[in-house]
Amino acid sequence: MRGKTKRTPQTDAPGERALIQRIRGRGSRKSFAGLVLGIGDDCALLAPKPGEEIAVTTDLSIAGRHFRLDWHPPEVVGYRTLARGLSDLAAMGARPLAAFLSLGLPPALTKAKGRKSSWLDLFFEGFLELAQAHKTPLAGGDLSQSPVAVADIVLVGAVPRGRALLRSGARAGDLIYVTGMLGGAAAGLARLSALAASAKRRSGHGRSVPPSIQRKMAPKRMADALAAHFYPQPRLAQGGWLQSKGLATSAIDLSDGLSTDLAHLCEESGVAAEIDAASLPIAQGATLEQALHGGEDYELLFTAPAEARMPSRVAGVPVTPIGRITRKLRGRPITTIRTERGAEPLVPRGWEHFV
Amino acid sequence: MRGKTKRTPQTDAPGERALIQRIRGRGSRKSFAGLVLGIGDDCALLAPKPGEEIAVTTDLSIAGRHFRLDWHPPEVVGYRTLARGLSDLAAMGARPLAAFLSLGLPPALTKAKGRKSSWLDLFFEGFLELAQAHKTPLAGGDLSQSPVAVADIVLVGAVPRGRALLRSGARAGDLIYVTGMLGGAAAGLARLSALAASAKRRSGHGRSVPPSIQRKMAPKRMADALAAHFYPQPRLAQGGWLQSKGLATSAIDLSDGLSTDLAHLCEESGVAAEIDAASLPIAQGATLEQALHGGEDYELLFTAPAEARMPSRVAGVPVTPIGRITRKLRGRPITTIRTERGAEPLVPRGWEHFV
Repeated sequence: MRGKTKRTPQTDAPGERALIQRIRGRGSRKSFAGLVLGIGDDCALLAPKPGEEIAVTTDLSIAGRHFRLDWHPPEVVGYRTLARGLSDLAAMGARPLAAFLSLGLPPALTKAKGRKSSWLDLFFEGFLELAQAHKTPLAGGDLSQSPVAVADIVLVGAVPRGRALLRSGARAGDLIYVTGMLGGAAAGLARLSALAASAKRRSGHGRSVPPSIQRKMAPKRMADALAAHFYPQPRLAQGGWLQSKGLATSAIDLSDGLSTDLAHLCEESGVAAEIDAASLPIAQGATLEQALHGGEDYELLFTAPAEARMPSRVAGVPVTPIGRITRKLRGRPITTIRTERGAEPLVPRGWEHFV
Repeated sequence: MRGKTKRTPQTDAPGERALIQRIRGRGSRKSFAGLVLGIGDDCALLAPKPGEEIAVTTDLSIAGRHFRLDWHPPEVVGYRTLARGLSDLAAMGARPLAAFLSLGLPPALTKAKGRKSSWLDLFFEGFLELAQAHKTPLAGGDLSQSPVAVADIVLVGAVPRGRALLRSGARAGDLIYVTGMLGGAAAGLARLSALAASAKRRSGHGRSVPPSIQRKMAPKRMADALAAHFYPQPRLAQGGWLQSKGLATSAIDLSDGLSTDLAHLCEESGVAAEIDAASLPIAQGATLEQALHGGEDYELLFTAPAEARMPSRVAGVPVTPIGRITRKLRGRPITTIRTERGAEPLVPRGWEHFV
C-alpha cells in the first residue's frame, strides 16, 4: 500500500497516514499462507504452492457509474469493490492469495468529521470484513487524491495447473447451471432507487438516500430487500468445489446479467445455449426480467456434462439446472429462452463487456 | 481486458470495441513464457517457474496529479504508466510476467477525430512500445467511462524464492549505489513547465503546451532535455542482474526522489545513511536539488557490502557509489549529506509515501 501526496499541501497527511498504518497493522496481524511480504516494499511477494498457476483479475469502480456516493453507504462500496474481484476468482475455481487496492478519493472523503469516522475508514470496514471472511490479505495498493472517487481492485489467486474453470470449455449436450438465486441484486437496486425518489419527494431537493436511511440500511440486520444488492456473496467455496471435483466444463460469474454472461460463455466456447424460463431460480421480490438481465448477482453460471451427478446444493448454496448447451447454427440466435410461448431469442441486455 | 458500458448509451461502443479487439490481438499475437491465458476470461492465468515467488505492484495515475493532459502527449502518458509499474519489479529484481491496466476515461478521449487517432489509441502506442521492449504481455484490465482520466497499472513478476531484493536488508557499513543519472526527470519537467508558461505568454490564454509542440516532442528524436521525464527507463536488466548475483543487500526504485526513497530504505532496514554530494551522478542540465529531491528518475538505489566487487556499469548503465549506511543513533538524523560545508541533515522533500 503506497499513498502519495506532494509534501507541501500536507494538511490531510497525518490522518491518512494513521489510517494506512492501521490498515497495514490489520492486514499483517495474522500470517496468511501464500503471502511472503505484504505492504511496505516496492512489490508484495506471494508464494503459490508447487504446481499451481496464478489467476489475476482487475475491476475498476467509479463513483456515479458503478456506485453512488448518495445511495451506497461507504461500507457497502468497500464490500462490493472486493466482492467483484473475489467473484472473478470464484469463476476460475481459484483460491485467493491476496488483494491489492488502488483508491483515488476527493480529500473530503478521507477526513473524519469530529468523532465520526471518515468515508474512507468506513469503506475499509466493509472491505476488510469481506476480506477476513475469505482469508484474503490486503497486500498492497495505492492511495491518491482524485476529483472523483475511484477504486481499482486486483485479486491474485492460485489454482492447480491446468485445472482452472474457463469460459471456453462448454460443449453441445452439456447442462447449464447457476448457483443461488437470480435478480435479487437488480430488485434491490430498484428498491434503493425508489427509496431515493421518495426521499426526494419528501425533502423537495436532491435525489439521494438521506444518511439516516443509509445508516439504517448498513447494518447486517437491514431488510433482506437490499442485502443481495449491498452484500452479494462471492461463490468461492462453490467454484473451488467444482474445480476440485472436475465436474464443470466451463464457468463465468454473473456480474453483467445472465443474458449477457451466457452469451460471453457461448462465444468463448463456440456453442449456443437454450434456457428454460420456468426453471430459473428467481430471487424473492425479483422479476423474470431482473433475473435474466439484472447483473451484479455474482452467482456462478457453469456447464457440466449431462451425465455428471450434480448435487442440488454445494457448500450450502442451491445449484439449479436452467438449460442446455447446443450446437451453434448459422442464422440461429446464440442464446434462446424457452417459455410457455415457445423458444424466443434471448437478447443480451445486461452490462456489456467489450471483450 | 474488460470494458463495460450500459448497452443503452452505446454510441462510442463500436470504436472502443474495435480498439480493444486490436489490443487483444497485439497482446496475444506472440506467446509469452509464463502467460497461460490472457484477455478474455474472468481472470488471466500465469505460470511462474518452479521455485519462483510472485511479485505484485499497483500504481494509480490520475490526470492533473500524475500527468497533465495539456502537457503530456498521450503516448508519453501510456509509456510512463507502464514504466512506473515495471520499475517496481526492477527494484525487487523480478522479471515481468504480465501487466494489467484499468483505465477510466472521459468519452472524448476514446473517440478518433476524423482520420486522427484517439487519445486512447495513442496512449496504447506508448504503452505497448514499452511493453514489447520488456517482453511484457498486457494480460487483462478494465475500461470504463470516468469524468477524469485515471490509469491503474498492475505488474505481476516472478523472482526465485527468497531471492527478491527488499528494502529491509541494508546493514551499517554497506555502500550505497545508484544506477544511471539523477535529476534528469525533474529538470525535464521544469523545462516542460517553462515551455507551457512561454506558450501562455504568446497565446495570452491557457497555460498548456500547444498540441503542435506536444507533437514535436513526442517522437524519439525529440530533445534529450525532455527524454528523462517523458521516457524513463525501468532498470529491469540491472535489478535482475543484482538479484541473480546476490550482490545487493537492499534496493528501492527512485520514484519519489533520492531524499525520500533513501529515508524509506533506511526506515525499513532500521539504519541511517550518509550521502556524498560530490559523488552524485547528476544528469546534464539538472541541479543538485533536482538530483536529491526530484523524483521520477526510476533509477535503482541499492546497497551492497563494502567488500563486494561492484562493476562500474551493469547492462550498459553506470553504477555509482554515493555514500554509506551507518548505525541509527538516537537524536541523529536518519539521512545526512556531506558537502564542502560538512555533514548536514538530508530532509526528505520528494513525493511522500505514507507507508
